[in-house]
Amino acid sequence: MIISQLSIAPVGVGTSLSRYVRIVLDVIRKNNIKFETNDMATVIETEDLDTLFKVVKEAHTAVIEAGAKRVITELKIDDRRDKDVRLGSKIKSLQ
Amino acid sequence: MIISQLSIAPVGVGTSLSRYVRIVLDVIRKNNIKFETNDMATVIETEDLDTLFKVVKEAHTAVIEAGAKRVITELKIDDRRDKDVRLGSKIKSLQ
Amino acid sequence: MIISQLSIAPVGVGTSLSRYVRIVLDVIRKNNIKFETNDMATVIETEDLDTLFKVVKEAHTAVIEAGAKRVITELKIDDRRDKDVRLGSKIKSLQ
Amino acid sequence: MIISQLSIAPVGVGTSLSRYVRIVLDVIRKNNIKFETNDMATVIETEDLDTLFKVVKEAHTAVIEAGAKRVITELKIDDRRDKDVRLGSKIKSLQ
Repeated sequence: MIISQLSIAPVGVGTSLSRYVRIVLDVIRKNNIKFETNDMATVIETEDLDTLFKVVKEAHTAVIEAGAKRVITELKIDDRRDKDVRLGSKIKSLQ
Repeated sequence: MIISQLSIAPVGVGTSLSRYVRIVLDVIRKNNIKFETNDMATVIETEDLDTLFKVVKEAHTAVIEAGAKRVITELKIDDRRDKDVRLGSKIKSLQ
Repeated sequence: MIISQLSIAPVGVGTSLSRYVRIVLDVIRKNNIKFETNDMATVIETEDLDTLFKVVKEAHTAVIEAGAKRVITELKIDDRRDKDVRLGSKIKSLQ
Repeated sequence: MIISQLSIAPVGVGTSLSRYVRIVLDVIRKNNIKFETNDMATVIETEDLDTLFKVVKEAHTAVIEAGAKRVITELKIDDRRDKDVRLGSKIKSLQ
């Protein structure tokens, strides 16, 4: 599994962005992607890069369709091939 | 309060980095900083930029002192002056 | 055009990563993508998200095929729909 | 030397941010920090973490003083202790 950190933020729509975070989370849920949201980003687990980019594209596009004229999307992919990693594995390894 | 996302990763010490994440969390705890760790980063709440940079410097330096010859530290600061924001506030605003 | 910042770094292969940066740049060149490399990342211009994700996937995969067992890929997409932006436009607007 | 990538962006002030990028660059120049700006970020060279955090704090604060009610500052620090690295060294090692 690939663990990624995703943040999608419209620019120029005011200081409150929670409406857009909800749009992103709706897209993630509809795609049946495992995720955990925190105050700064959403961490997601996907089986491969194609699934990941499909959901990121859909979420990014949904924010534009919601009226944003400029969108900054940040994605950090942690792809580990020496070990099976799941959402929550890395936190567990700290204990 | 200022909410920040912090990730400190040594380069060239193998693929498992959990030992170094623990060092970073120890520094955050010793400084009595409120934090939440997820699979990709640690989200922290600090009163001001000076407190933030003090703890980031201390954590970054601790990873070097633990033997890392190259360290990549990533910090994303969300500083909102129109509203009092705490650790957990942004998640709450989504509900 | 969409302007993005890309960084692909293997973890656990030593402190020198320039060999892998060259692999990433080769993939970008072969795809005829306009780019500018700096000391911390490569800035690229793509016509749409599909082109962007295709080249990021190919570059990320090439680093894994070169022997990396863990790869961290970071992508920051700046997608502006109110204005035609090209590689170099933002620097020009500062002058 | 420590090489860092810095991006400071106000949220909620419209889609054009070049006015604020200029404020950040002015602070960097006044501090006699070596830098290179690209379309997505500014890469800077500092002697140590104290100098780095001093200039980041000053630039972040200048953007708030210019009227931004919310500022997102992103900093990626590449601190290499096994080799003397300067602004431009990493690009040179690719040739």
